[in-house]
Amino acid sequence: MPTQWYNIMADMPNKPLPPLHPGTKQPIGPEALTPLFPMELIKQEVSADRWIDIPEEVQDLYKIWRPTPLHRAYHLEKALGTPAKIYYKNESVSPAGSHKPNTALPQAYYNYKEGVKRITTETGAGQWGSALSFACQHFGIELKVFMVKVSYHQKPYRKMMMNTWGADVVPSPSDQTEAGRHILSKYPDSPGSLGIAISEAVEMAAKDDKTKYALGSVLNHVLMHQTVIGLEALKQLEIAGDYPDIVIGCFGGGSNFAGISFPILRYNFTEGKKTRVIAAEPASCPKLTRGQFQYDFGDTEGLTPLIPMFTLGHNFVPDNIHAGGLRYHGAGAIVSQLLKDKLIEAQSVKQLETFEAGVLFARTEGIIPAPESTHAIAVAIREAQKAKEEGKSKTILFNLSGHGFIDMSAYDQYFAGKLQDHEVTDVEIKESLALLDKVL
Amino acid sequence: MPTQWYNIMADMPNKPLPPLHPGTKQPIGPEALTPLFPMELIKQEVSADRWIDIPEEVQDLYKIWRPTPLHRAYHLEKALGTPAKIYYKNESVSPAGSHKPNTALPQAYYNYKEGVKRITTETGAGQWGSALSFACQHFGIELKVFMVKVSYHQKPYRKMMMNTWGADVVPSPSDQTEAGRHILSKYPDSPGSLGIAISEAVEMAAKDDKTKYALGSVLNHVLMHQTVIGLEALKQLEIAGDYPDIVIGCFGGGSNFAGISFPILRYNFTEGKKTRVIAAEPASCPKLTRGQFQYDFGDTEGLTPLIPMFTLGHNFVPDNIHAGGLRYHGAGAIVSQLLKDKLIEAQSVKQLETFEAGVLFARTEGIIPAPESTHAIAVAIREAQKAKEEGKSKTILFNLSGHGFIDMSAYDQYFAGKLQDHEVTDVEIKESLALLDKVL
Repeated sequence: MPTQWYNIMADMPNKPLPPLHPGTKQPIGPEALTPLFPMELIKQEVSADRWIDIPEEVQDLYKIWRPTPLHRAYHLEKALGTPAKIYYKNESVSPAGSHKPNTALPQAYYNYKEGVKRITTETGAGQWGSALSFACQHFGIELKVFMVKVSYHQKPYRKMMMNTWGADVVPSPSDQTEAGRHILSKYPDSPGSLGIAISEAVEMAAKDDKTKYALGSVLNHVLMHQTVIGLEALKQLEIAGDYPDIVIGCFGGGSNFAGISFPILRYNFTEGKKTRVIAAEPASCPKLTRGQFQYDFGDTEGLTPLIPMFTLGHNFVPDNIHAGGLRYHGAGAIVSQLLKDKLIEAQSVKQLETFEAGVLFARTEGIIPAPESTHAIAVAIREAQKAKEEGKSKTILFNLSGHGFIDMSAYDQYFAGKLQDHEVTDVEIKESLALLDKVL
Repeated sequence: MPTQWYNIMADMPNKPLPPLHPGTKQPIGPEALTPLFPMELIKQEVSADRWIDIPEEVQDLYKIWRPTPLHRAYHLEKALGTPAKIYYKNESVSPAGSHKPNTALPQAYYNYKEGVKRITTETGAGQWGSALSFACQHFGIELKVFMVKVSYHQKPYRKMMMNTWGADVVPSPSDQTEAGRHILSKYPDSPGSLGIAISEAVEMAAKDDKTKYALGSVLNHVLMHQTVIGLEALKQLEIAGDYPDIVIGCFGGGSNFAGISFPILRYNFTEGKKTRVIAAEPASCPKLTRGQFQYDFGDTEGLTPLIPMFTLGHNFVPDNIHAGGLRYHGAGAIVSQLLKDKLIEAQSVKQLETFEAGVLFARTEGIIPAPESTHAIAVAIREAQKAKEEGKSKTILFNLSGHGFIDMSAYDQYFAGKLQDHEVTDVEIKESLALLDKVL
């Protein structure tokens, strides 16, 4: 098991542009983040060190479920009749059922070490919220979760999990913050979005000296904590005598994608390896494939710093797909820079294709995947089929970011023929980005 | 990983009495089971060999999630302030979320090898049904699951999991069998029971030459397949330099209990070890602590052979507790003989105590347990507290048979104060057993 996280900032050719103050639009330093985060996480956020030590207490907690298994998907390969070798890293075996505890535990740990007693956060499908509930419960920190309203209703079991771990969960937009009340006054029936929920959580933390905020994706330190996934996978592949030609992760804010791919991108940068790295995003929220690279807010109300990112505009409210964790308007600064520099690729997938892939995976490999993870599976299947057409053996690695036990109703709707594809129109994207021009 | 299953029949001091024909009441031989089971499983059912080889194909499938982790519950120990060391074997990491695939896969395998194309089964909480769905899907066998009606409605996600793995699921009692119609004519609102569901599944298989039946607990071969749990645990404990003073499993039909405990009982029988082995059953279905040892049917309609067992009577319909997998009127022949000979112990636990234990476990160890498994946790906590009172260090091992992701609504009801304790009265037990006397 790794004892250090990998920081890609040390090796990427072009570093991301700096974040800007939301008011002055001037570059900000680390001190601007102190109302929201403990100092140790801010240091990690701006660090240029290649390796960051994982605290022993966090390593001990990782041992509850890490190292996670790396599997060769023999039965899926057989069903596809592909010459490709497909491997997947199974992050679904964590207590919360996804990769999210990899960063929830260190974030709660650093807050605990600095005496923080209360944290706010947001969650989409609930994977992040439940992971942070588990972590905060462990360190005796009180947690308030703003859960995107559509997911709150679609995924009641997730809310119950968070309650079981002692967290307070409210559907967002809520009437507990100015940001929430503002949205509700304009759109009383708003299904919510990660951007709105972030506004609520950030506002509540910023207004209270004793409360900090935690984010489950997007930021550098979060992506870095997830690199345990890729570091373990590389060692496991080495034991199997293999190295990936293609690496795939589903993409919401970028955390599981970065986790599986950054330690492999490192060898592209430093040793001339040529692994293709592919982000799999939903066709209904296509920021990487159809968004624009520019400064934008991380939240809907414009409370966060401006970040250089591929974005659909922070007012973009995606369709209510079941992959709630991928319903986010923007990408983090590092991933956006990598995409801009054409060092990674992106593909979008429609909802029906993702469920088709998820069912095939469940029936061949035995694990029912989360709707988010089915995006990575769908792209892995595309690439395996391409290998078949080309008659080439390729080694494909994807991250199974979470299981779908909590999302069975989505599968039920799929089998009942109630799910539809929704692709965003060019006009919708243009309008959302035009709004952005007005604000900035 | 073990390459053989352990058969306790080779080592137990008194062998169980033989099964009797349901009509003639005379002892039956293996040939009587051929309409229901493939020959290889019947051989295992009556085998006296200490070790049975695990087929390589099954070993390969076990590798999807085995060996399962053995954890020391440091955080639970700390919360209890106990000098006891508490270990748990985590069977929740399997694709279906419980220990049930350990026997579902070999059962499906042997049926497949003998050309069986269709299987019927019953399921309570759905753990067994989903495990067998996964296994049958793998081997291309069609599966029909009779799911106890109350669980069918309490646990819709379990049904959806079975559908995702391609199985056909009907609530029991159903109108698809004589047994089901008979019950419905007497009790139109019957919540169902495992006994009723077994009647339906057995009837359907017995009437069709091309259909076999599979059972998830009770029978010797099923219990034997589960011994991979205890065999692994012993090896893992050896690495930790430990050996259990107390072993605990929750108890429905006996499969996870036998799985964790039989390989340890072996050393009680053969090497004079004195490990206490405790079955944890619900107070609302107390066959081991308050039932009677006698011949009884495995099902409600009297279609199965008569088995020598601790029973509450095959007509007993337990309260609708959330631990649906433990709502069974009887215990298997081997476990019943062991209890009669005082080689194992039993404790009953009320529902509220089990959920209290489950929440404490989730908040300390991070894993949300299945309602069935919380019975084992509750007894482990009792024994750890007793060790504290006595000021003695004890090594306690329990089996975490499954996770509770599918049972979150049970936790929700617990937090909302909607769950109640239900203890069976002596009169109810007496009446149920009196009915039995009339039949036999």
